[in-house]
Amino acid sequence: MADERSYLDHNASAPLRACARTAMLSALDNAANASSVHAEGRAVRRLVERARREVATLVDAAAEHVVFTSGATEAANMLLTPDWRMGRAPLTMGRLYVSAADHPCMLSGGRFAGEAVETFAVRSDGLVDLDALAAVLAAHDGSTGLALVAVHAANNETGVIQPVGEIARLVKDAGGVLVVDAVQAVGRIPVDIAEGWGDFLILSSHKLGGPKGAGAIVGRSDLMMPAPLMSGGGQEKGHRAGTENVAAIAGFGAAAAESLSELENMTTVRQMRDDIEAAIRHSAPDAIIHGTTAPRLPNTSFFSLPESKAETLQIAFDLQGVALSAGSACSSGKVGPSHVLKAMGQGEEATALRVSIGTVTTQDDVVRFRRALAEIADRQARKRSRAA
Amino acid sequence: MADERSYLDHNASAPLRACARTAMLSALDNAANASSVHAEGRAVRRLVERARREVATLVDAAAEHVVFTSGATEAANMLLTPDWRMGRAPLTMGRLYVSAADHPCMLSGGRFAGEAVETFAVRSDGLVDLDALAAVLAAHDGSTGLALVAVHAANNETGVIQPVGEIARLVKDAGGVLVVDAVQAVGRIPVDIAEGWGDFLILSSHKLGGPKGAGAIVGRSDLMMPAPLMSGGGQEKGHRAGTENVAAIAGFGAAAAESLSELENMTTVRQMRDDIEAAIRHSAPDAIIHGTTAPRLPNTSFFSLPESKAETLQIAFDLQGVALSAGSACSSGKVGPSHVLKAMGQGEEATALRVSIGTVTTQDDVVRFRRALAEIADRQARKRSRAA
Repeated sequence: MADERSYLDHNASAPLRACARTAMLSALDNAANASSVHAEGRAVRRLVERARREVATLVDAAAEHVVFTSGATEAANMLLTPDWRMGRAPLTMGRLYVSAADHPCMLSGGRFAGEAVETFAVRSDGLVDLDALAAVLAAHDGSTGLALVAVHAANNETGVIQPVGEIARLVKDAGGVLVVDAVQAVGRIPVDIAEGWGDFLILSSHKLGGPKGAGAIVGRSDLMMPAPLMSGGGQEKGHRAGTENVAAIAGFGAAAAESLSELENMTTVRQMRDDIEAAIRHSAPDAIIHGTTAPRLPNTSFFSLPESKAETLQIAFDLQGVALSAGSACSSGKVGPSHVLKAMGQGEEATALRVSIGTVTTQDDVVRFRRALAEIADRQARKRSRAA
Repeated sequence: MADERSYLDHNASAPLRACARTAMLSALDNAANASSVHAEGRAVRRLVERARREVATLVDAAAEHVVFTSGATEAANMLLTPDWRMGRAPLTMGRLYVSAADHPCMLSGGRFAGEAVETFAVRSDGLVDLDALAAVLAAHDGSTGLALVAVHAANNETGVIQPVGEIARLVKDAGGVLVVDAVQAVGRIPVDIAEGWGDFLILSSHKLGGPKGAGAIVGRSDLMMPAPLMSGGGQEKGHRAGTENVAAIAGFGAAAAESLSELENMTTVRQMRDDIEAAIRHSAPDAIIHGTTAPRLPNTSFFSLPESKAETLQIAFDLQGVALSAGSACSSGKVGPSHVLKAMGQGEEATALRVSIGTVTTQDDVVRFRRALAEIADRQARKRSRAA
């Protein structure tokens, strides 16, 4: 059985789309640097600019407001800084407010000093507590600079979708600036920066079927921009120095275009996710599936089996040929309690398993998951009856 | 003639080696995140660690002292910072000293404030003025912190090879820390961090035939490390957060291994470069070839034709099917005077053409260059005689 495997960990990294692979291979055939002015250089420049349009279209932005980075972590470190510019004038963000259920690369606060980073609560259903956000914004000391708010559009562990429109209105009314981590949302639900999705989006290529090694910040405008994280070259209009990773950017663009066109296929993905959750409820009736009372991504399920550590279960699934995760894969090999569940009031030590799928997932994958879970649950039941 | 083209701009970006392409394709077949603990995650982790050993071997370092980045610009921005740690204790670099002929990503000073960055001179032959370096080190105010010195091993424009051993001794005697930009040196001359090559090296994948999108810092040890440029994840032992660009890193490793084994082929590359310079002297007897009195990389030639702007000549070569550069390709489409020639005392407006080749360059490329130059020089001579 374990000869054929099911990869159900798309939120950690999605399989590379065929179109992205093709775009990469084509880019790899041209040696040139995108800053070179000879014919070869101009040709790779065109690949970068085409990808910029494709990524912009994915979130209804203008291409000139896309800045490519090496990934979402770099994008977060670029945007989360006190030092900004409005045109040529300096502009200061006095304090960073980030939701307690955000990704570690947002919670770490980027270039803010630790004491200038403050978290606001999420509710037990995983949604941002809008009253808590309003309270921290009301208490913000404007003399230190603007309030910078960072929040995820969809949670990487639970899949819970935040009310970004309402958050954006609150932040706007308070005169703040909103950065939205849309890494897990794009390609799974419609994301539209022109329609109340905040001031900046963070995107990642490899979470939507592009290659690892590319990401972007996308602005509603480019009047106000963060001080560069990397200096020493005029690339990306001076916002991000360094030779462009043309192949990864081209692959990102192709994946962005296809994932936009495939949004309608999310109905099928949702049906498979629901089949997976039906299997969980059948084989493990006492399982807790997290975040189900809030809107969720169609591809994600995050569940706990009582009296079982997610880390142990994850290994059991792996041995059965099913790759899924216990929490997020954000740091090297570390598996521990979920800070997202903790933020949802589930306690310090809560762990859970995450199944995350995509349009390439098949009914065979669902069956393999169901069988693996049935076997694991059965073994646990026998263990419990021996202990009783 | 221009149907077949010769790409002679390897110092801007070298053609991807077949072995690197193969390594990338293999890595792209595995979707997983290298931080995931399932079988797929462990498999891509092995690819990253194999590449780490290959890159370490290239410069005779220990694998555990290699930190992968998205490229050399990120590596420079990571190393050039006042904030370091010695174990867990904070350590401050008081001032950055960088050679006037360094790459813009070094001259920009990374995370140092502008006023804390000081340049030291190079001589008219392009070599670092050791007396000037000794003088700035002697004047360094140790109460501000250690002296951090940054210098290139080989110049990206002229190919001039610096006396890194002597520079390292001077810096060590002054109690300073030396960062060596070895981007253009590795794969072309032996580089050995165990043998007096400074405290940290900066490497770039795409300059040695790996893909764009990967680079590294390599330390002589990891006792003393810069504060991370990117935070928010435990990757690279906490020194560099962000999902590893596995395919680019795997390609980097393969290219590093092959470029090390091909060092002996540099004799052939040097012969072709010398043939190119013989052609320059033949067709344009009044041409100036820069840096020829100093040791130079075997693959680089940097030359000026009197009364001709390099930008115009570069376009003429491009139309003849020869891609070469006028200065470095470090910022988007910008071609201007060479700061390296200025540092060598050639004046504010000096420009030059750079030919840079590699082991894949052929005699056909040399012939195409020779014919293009002959035609361009002939046209110039006719223009001059008409004007006379």
